[in-house]
Amino acid sequence: MTATIPAAVETARDYFGPALAAAVNRLSPDIREVAAYHLALPTEDGVAQGAPGGGGKALRPALALLSARAADAPPERAVPAAVAVELVHNFSLLHDDIMDGDTERRHRPTAWTVFGVGSAILAGDALLALAQDLLLESPPPEGIWASRCLAAAVQRLIAGQGADLAFERRSDVTVAECLDMAGDKTAALMACACSIGAVYVGGPANIAKNLAAFGAYVGLAFQLTDDLLGIWGAPETTGKPVRSDLRTRKKSLPVVAALTSGTEAGRDLAVLLEAPDPLTEDELLGAADLVETAGGKEWAETKADAALASAVSYLTETEMPPDVRAEFEGIAEFVTARQW
Amino acid sequence: MTATIPAAVETARDYFGPALAAAVNRLSPDIREVAAYHLALPTEDGVAQGAPGGGGKALRPALALLSARAADAPPERAVPAAVAVELVHNFSLLHDDIMDGDTERRHRPTAWTVFGVGSAILAGDALLALAQDLLLESPPPEGIWASRCLAAAVQRLIAGQGADLAFERRSDVTVAECLDMAGDKTAALMACACSIGAVYVGGPANIAKNLAAFGAYVGLAFQLTDDLLGIWGAPETTGKPVRSDLRTRKKSLPVVAALTSGTEAGRDLAVLLEAPDPLTEDELLGAADLVETAGGKEWAETKADAALASAVSYLTETEMPPDVRAEFEGIAEFVTARQW
Repeated sequence: MTATIPAAVETARDYFGPALAAAVNRLSPDIREVAAYHLALPTEDGVAQGAPGGGGKALRPALALLSARAADAPPERAVPAAVAVELVHNFSLLHDDIMDGDTERRHRPTAWTVFGVGSAILAGDALLALAQDLLLESPPPEGIWASRCLAAAVQRLIAGQGADLAFERRSDVTVAECLDMAGDKTAALMACACSIGAVYVGGPANIAKNLAAFGAYVGLAFQLTDDLLGIWGAPETTGKPVRSDLRTRKKSLPVVAALTSGTEAGRDLAVLLEAPDPLTEDELLGAADLVETAGGKEWAETKADAALASAVSYLTETEMPPDVRAEFEGIAEFVTARQW
Repeated sequence: MTATIPAAVETARDYFGPALAAAVNRLSPDIREVAAYHLALPTEDGVAQGAPGGGGKALRPALALLSARAADAPPERAVPAAVAVELVHNFSLLHDDIMDGDTERRHRPTAWTVFGVGSAILAGDALLALAQDLLLESPPPEGIWASRCLAAAVQRLIAGQGADLAFERRSDVTVAECLDMAGDKTAALMACACSIGAVYVGGPANIAKNLAAFGAYVGLAFQLTDDLLGIWGAPETTGKPVRSDLRTRKKSLPVVAALTSGTEAGRDLAVLLEAPDPLTEDELLGAADLVETAGGKEWAETKADAALASAVSYLTETEMPPDVRAEFEGIAEFVTARQW
């Protein structure tokens, strides 16, 4: 496995970057400022905001453009779909950062900490509305199909975030519920990203269907990896404090697997996470060890590997140009690479 | 002028009420609970939440259904469009209440005070996405036209709220900027409500165009009236504390007209509103008097009357069944009736 950014992702940024900036330029000035900051777009006088790549990995647009190529269309035809998916992803980040109280993302202060909660809510709203605008303006019927594909993913994304918030108030969350939540919150938009390009260029239904299944498994593997990084990832990689998910007592997949393991370590972990005071650094280290001892780490790693294998099997059985298949595989391995 | 709810509004509620409830039922349980509370929908066992009519006046759906009738179609054909407009209106209320820190709406605690900021943000997101879902599911091409009509209104609504937030941080807002803001924040969705029914049933373009102009003027008159109520309205009518807009030092239209009047009263008002401490009841009374002395009240009343007259003139020059025209007029007068 590799942690080097795949070529498809770099190429995608060249294609879709200017289109993303043009879309954001349509917003009213007050809101554009917040959206451009969040997306780390260059300011009007060309000054970069944040480090290169600060605007995120742009994986979803890369997948959208690849999915057009899988349906034998030139990637540039699917640019509006790629931009729309990236806008929806960033709508959800803007709002999630408020809900989760996160103060840092991609090594920069989150938008709500810079511009206030109100402006960040509005900027998120504007990106969501803009995403649908772009697809509705596209030639029918493909633009409309893509629009419905995105709308369905948005509803699942919102439902998943709702479940995630509800989990915070519960101490009896099951692994099955947690997997469902990840399916909604993360996998639905990834499935959409992997298939929307093919839909948008009017490709065959079975290609879109298989790519959606590929994307759903990639999304699940991605979430499991992200949850593992939230405990064992290095701050340089994650852009978040070390063991950040334990600090915030997030009911992530490895944590819930540990809590429901029926082991002594799981029970000790529950006691630790229910303590009213903030956890000390020693307690956080202890909590990470308990998740591992209770089998939560191994379970998540095994599950991520299995999801990645399922994803790849959908790729294998779908007819597409071999270089496109290889690039899809490269991205799938990239997003599930372990970096600790 | 009358303050009695027009018959068209009551009838509309019968048509679109069940469709609204059915749409909200599609949301995931955690989010549905928040949305149903905000909309004051009956709970699953049929218990009313809040007072009858607590879910708002449902003016926009009434206008949407009337607009289908203006294009000679039965109102029930435009129900999805009516529901979509009401969902967008409530998406914006849910988010605005957070941004403005409002703790009461329609005589009940606002959703964010009951369920938390995160859940209220999500519920708003879900209503916005659901609105577009309903239209995208409708038969093309009319469903798509209606969808774009709504999307354009949503972008203006968001831009208007963005301008409103930005005004809070400025002391040099002009009346022209304030009117533009009201045009975006309030009039755009009203214009959409008044025309989307005609669009949705495939009515003639000139009817949709004139009804949009009618709606834009009604929206402006409505905002002016709402701003007047925010200073001189009775709490029983507004559901807000007396002189609430002065309490929160909102840069509403009559206030900005007074501040920019070049009068001594306007200058005294500026000094009062820039004081750091919360205003006492006596100071609030004084501020209301200063707005009036500076001519802000009379300006807003004159402007509202002129907007209503412009609205009605668009109605007059549009061919439609006379009973439909009369009902449009009745609603326009209802929303601009003075209640103080």
